Amino acid sequence: MSSEFDLIQSCFTWRHSSSTVIKGVGDDAAVVSVPDGKQLVVTTDTLISGVHFPVDTSAHAIGHKALAVNLSDLAAMGAEPAWFTLAISLPEEDKQWLDDFSLGMRALADQSGIVLIGGDTTRGPLSVTITAIGLVEPERLLLRSAAKHDDVIYVTGKLGDAAAGLAMLQGGYSGDKSEACINKLNYPLPRNAESFLIRDHVNACLDISDGFLADLGHILEASKVGALVDLAAIPLSVDLQQIDRQQALEYALQGGDDYELLFTVPVSLQAEFEQLIQHHGVLCYRVGTINQSLSGIVSTAGEPLEPAGYNHFSA
Amino acid sequence: MSSEFDLIQSCFTWRHSSSTVIKGVGDDAAVVSVPDGKQLVVTTDTLISGVHFPVDTSAHAIGHKALAVNLSDLAAMGAEPAWFTLAISLPEEDKQWLDDFSLGMRALADQSGIVLIGGDTTRGPLSVTITAIGLVEPERLLLRSAAKHDDVIYVTGKLGDAAAGLAMLQGGYSGDKSEACINKLNYPLPRNAESFLIRDHVNACLDISDGFLADLGHILEASKVGALVDLAAIPLSVDLQQIDRQQALEYALQGGDDYELLFTVPVSLQAEFEQLIQHHGVLCYRVGTINQSLSGIVSTAGEPLEPAGYNHFSA
Repeated sequence: MSSEFDLIQSCFTWRHSSSTVIKGVGDDAAVVSVPDGKQLVVTTDTLISGVHFPVDTSAHAIGHKALAVNLSDLAAMGAEPAWFTLAISLPEEDKQWLDDFSLGMRALADQSGIVLIGGDTTRGPLSVTITAIGLVEPERLLLRSAAKHDDVIYVTGKLGDAAAGLAMLQGGYSGDKSEACINKLNYPLPRNAESFLIRDHVNACLDISDGFLADLGHILEASKVGALVDLAAIPLSVDLQQIDRQQALEYALQGGDDYELLFTVPVSLQAEFEQLIQHHGVLCYRVGTINQSLSGIVSTAGEPLEPAGYNHFSA
Repeated sequence: MSSEFDLIQSCFTWRHSSSTVIKGVGDDAAVVSVPDGKQLVVTTDTLISGVHFPVDTSAHAIGHKALAVNLSDLAAMGAEPAWFTLAISLPEEDKQWLDDFSLGMRALADQSGIVLIGGDTTRGPLSVTITAIGLVEPERLLLRSAAKHDDVIYVTGKLGDAAAGLAMLQGGYSGDKSEACINKLNYPLPRNAESFLIRDHVNACLDISDGFLADLGHILEASKVGALVDLAAIPLSVDLQQIDRQQALEYALQGGDDYELLFTVPVSLQAEFEQLIQHHGVLCYRVGTINQSLSGIVSTAGEPLEPAGYNHFSA
């Protein structure tokens, strides 16, 4: 009836083939059926213009990233993506913006098999909140509290590119601008396929959103252990290998927005695990070990490593 | 670690006794178990300062209302409240504000048995997005598309008070200010208990958020029927009975934010239904009948009734 309804209808009625969706967009709420034996994993993340992405980020990238960060949380829990809801607040009706946003989000949704089941569109300052729901068998659930002494610590990809990309956009970067880094910032790829592959070998897991040290700190705190980290093993992209090493490590250790999985594997499963990922052509980087006699994070050179972290209210 | 975390921890770690919550606030996502034989009902609603509530609304009322409108959607579907996530964006860290907000929300959460399982707190213009999840047996699900010819149309309470309350706050009201109306605007009571009671007798159902005529229009459109409405039967509060009748009806028919259930009962079940609600001391008001030979909404005087509705982008 109203143009608000037309807007949602035209931009967000995507076709899907999920038999679990009984009622999608269009009633007071969506209705879905849950397969037997699965638990629900539920996560909510908000992206606000100027806080979580630069104000001139394209609608397409915002659509992608808003979904990506939520998918990444599901990956961190070992859950398979199932459904999501979308709340957008927009300063004004802008069909072109919504079309681009929708395209960016839909490409990632289709690729990861998650289905949009409902949402809310309101007028207000630009912000996007997604609630994503995943499914997991109870015995496959990955928690940040499950790291054990002697576990090997891995990450699923190079670190620091998104932080470097942000510095490039904000003019605080000393090297040449790199499209690859800016792309990593705007189009993070959630590691759902990797999560699916590795989850039976993993003890603790989370995704790096606050920065490697801050997020490793979350695992250590929840698991009541310490960690030894080999700084020489922190994986850096070609771009970051070309700048000052201290600066590159700063991006990789303290920068956020990586959305790589950070996880631990029992040392007894290490060989089998590395064979598994090699067999599937998946790269993971060994960066350290869990150690219950240590407090916090210590480098192999014996230096304590402190997370600077990120606090939305500290700026 | 950061004060953001402390903030969430201190304001939103509420005790609950739900055995379905495997992991609440604190990991990358929450984990819950779904009882056998139930489907999930999922709804998302955003409240933005200055759009969905006046800018000077108390934090306590915002906390209540943000949850209430989502609970109301669950009631509209015949679903029992189970879990919710909360995304708040706040211009600045304000412990007192968050405490009041939390108190308002928690009182309603406890009363309706819904459990907060996670969320996100970000810095930005004041807005609150909640995703609420309910549970329902498939055969008890209430849809707006299920109205049938000869169904009797009911509402669960008096209409128009919230719209009148908004007019009072905005200075556009001709009568005396009424605390009751302003209270109905700020503290809508979701009809979850009523939904539970009536759902086995109901065909179509939704909650009135856009206004009686607009929302009845949604039922008619989805069900492909028309309706005959008796304007003399539209229930008005004592406050609205004291002002100009045309103005009162305008609030009741076109005003939004009522959060009463609007539903239809097969005429064959009418007597049994009315006995049931009387037995439980629940008031519902008969306001019309579904008629498949009519197009849209027609008054018993034969006058077509047009919803003015509300569109977030039309202002």
